[in-house]
Amino acid sequence: MKFVVKVMPRPEALDPQGRAVEGMLKKLGHSVEQCRVGKMIELNLENVKSETEGKELVRKMAGDLLYNPLIETFEVEVKA
Amino acid sequence: MKFVVKVMPRPEALDPQGRAVEGMLKKLGHSVEQCRVGKMIELNLENVKSETEGKELVRKMAGDLLYNPLIETFEVEVKA
Repeated sequence: MKFVVKVMPRPEALDPQGRAVEGMLKKLGHSVEQCRVGKMIELNLENVKSETEGKELVRKMAGDLLYNPLIETFEVEVKA
Repeated sequence: MKFVVKVMPRPEALDPQGRAVEGMLKKLGHSVEQCRVGKMIELNLENVKSETEGKELVRKMAGDLLYNPLIETFEVEVKA
């Protein structure tokens, strides 16, 4: 079963990467009000019996390694 | 209107970041078969009249700056 972890910078965090991308897009002539850059992590878990079990395991992985709670938030989804 | 660009490494691309995360997760005792790491870019476009118009603009931004067609693919979604 495949899962996706979406990690985004918290609204109050600075997100320098997002500001850099926003600046470059404007320089290239694009009209954009705000840009935030986060990560998307696809995980394939084979020995998982249910979505609930898999999401629980993925949440543990997120807490151990995939996101920094001080500056980021995350969501877990089952991949269609 | 808010849009999300999901940028993932192509299946045939190496994705060293994904392999590093996979290795670390296994070292930490998690059971994971495969891991791929991509980017999630949220864009806020204020002067957009329709989803179709916005997606078209975002696709242009992606082609100009947000993804590398040699090693990545991307999808555009309207953010709920």
